[in-house]
Amino acid sequence: MIDTENQPTAEGIFTERHTAYRFTTESVTDTELAHLYELAKFTPTAMNSQPLRITFVRTEAGKQRLLPLLSEGNRAKAESAPVVAILAADTDFHEHLPELLPQSPNARDGLAADTDRRAQMALNNAWLQSGAFIMAVRAVGLDAGPMGGINAAGIDAEFFAGTSLKTILVVNIGHVADNGSFPRNPRLSFGDAVSLA
Amino acid sequence: MIDTENQPTAEGIFTERHTAYRFTTESVTDTELAHLYELAKFTPTAMNSQPLRITFVRTEAGKQRLLPLLSEGNRAKAESAPVVAILAADTDFHEHLPELLPQSPNARDGLAADTDRRAQMALNNAWLQSGAFIMAVRAVGLDAGPMGGINAAGIDAEFFAGTSLKTILVVNIGHVADNGSFPRNPRLSFGDAVSLA
Repeated sequence: MIDTENQPTAEGIFTERHTAYRFTTESVTDTELAHLYELAKFTPTAMNSQPLRITFVRTEAGKQRLLPLLSEGNRAKAESAPVVAILAADTDFHEHLPELLPQSPNARDGLAADTDRRAQMALNNAWLQSGAFIMAVRAVGLDAGPMGGINAAGIDAEFFAGTSLKTILVVNIGHVADNGSFPRNPRLSFGDAVSLA
Repeated sequence: MIDTENQPTAEGIFTERHTAYRFTTESVTDTELAHLYELAKFTPTAMNSQPLRITFVRTEAGKQRLLPLLSEGNRAKAESAPVVAILAADTDFHEHLPELLPQSPNARDGLAADTDRRAQMALNNAWLQSGAFIMAVRAVGLDAGPMGGINAAGIDAEFFAGTSLKTILVVNIGHVADNGSFPRNPRLSFGDAVSLA
């Protein structure tokens, strides 16, 4: 488990850690991945739907299947990461609703009949979970490098053929190397991003 | 600023706080909203695009415009919250890229020509930012109550007519009341949500 003495603060996971592009050779343990999921799973979702599915790629064979499906500029980043997480939305998440939302016994059947609404719910909520997942990676003391430059259809075909999973994002995970982050780019000011009513 | 002695831990914002349905009358200060944005703004996004736009509704007049546009079951929740945040995606986020992504001087023009890709990028990344936003609310010591049951098109018409903003989610913000949360619903197990490759 985490060293509570050196546990990151809630504020620090926003302000102190940022996107990592190169990682040290230090491995990520099974215990760390389990701990990461134990935090990320609590992210709130509509109807407690939890559509996010995570594939932790960490074998050499797994890496060789994934690397060609990343944009060229992203391959060296993923190669240096001890774990590369494929984040996907399960468009058949409704099958779990009897267990996840026991107070609404008709929720599964309602969504079974509406594939468009279900697919949209799956994608929206999996993206929402992805944002909190990145913060959970940092909360367990690891660094994250999310990458949008991917061949999502290719990853679906290689890893999720015959399933209801749709890849949305790939996140490198490990311990950032010296100079393994770029300086942060500017952020929108409060006045540019926020209104009051 | 935050009381560092009682600052939430990174782990605690996942495990200890959860969705709030009823709030105390304690107000949320300008300083807290500014602090919240100072954390949330650091969420990583594709091309540093930062499409999320936030409208903090906290006047009585603002509440009266918003409440009829929430599903009936959500109105009392929002009424009890000192601040209700409308989260929206700005589909014209590309106009800020010369400032936000100075190393890619052609990024704005490339996206200007591709409205479909831009709208999708705006929505995906705003949803991702929303997940981290909920965690940022908790990181500043407040409680969050995200609500999917909204009339998004109605909110767009009432608050964002003539703009490029598309509402995606509404989040109640304040201090949770006694018994203002329901017990947590079950979460998927590691084995149900995670695969290894």
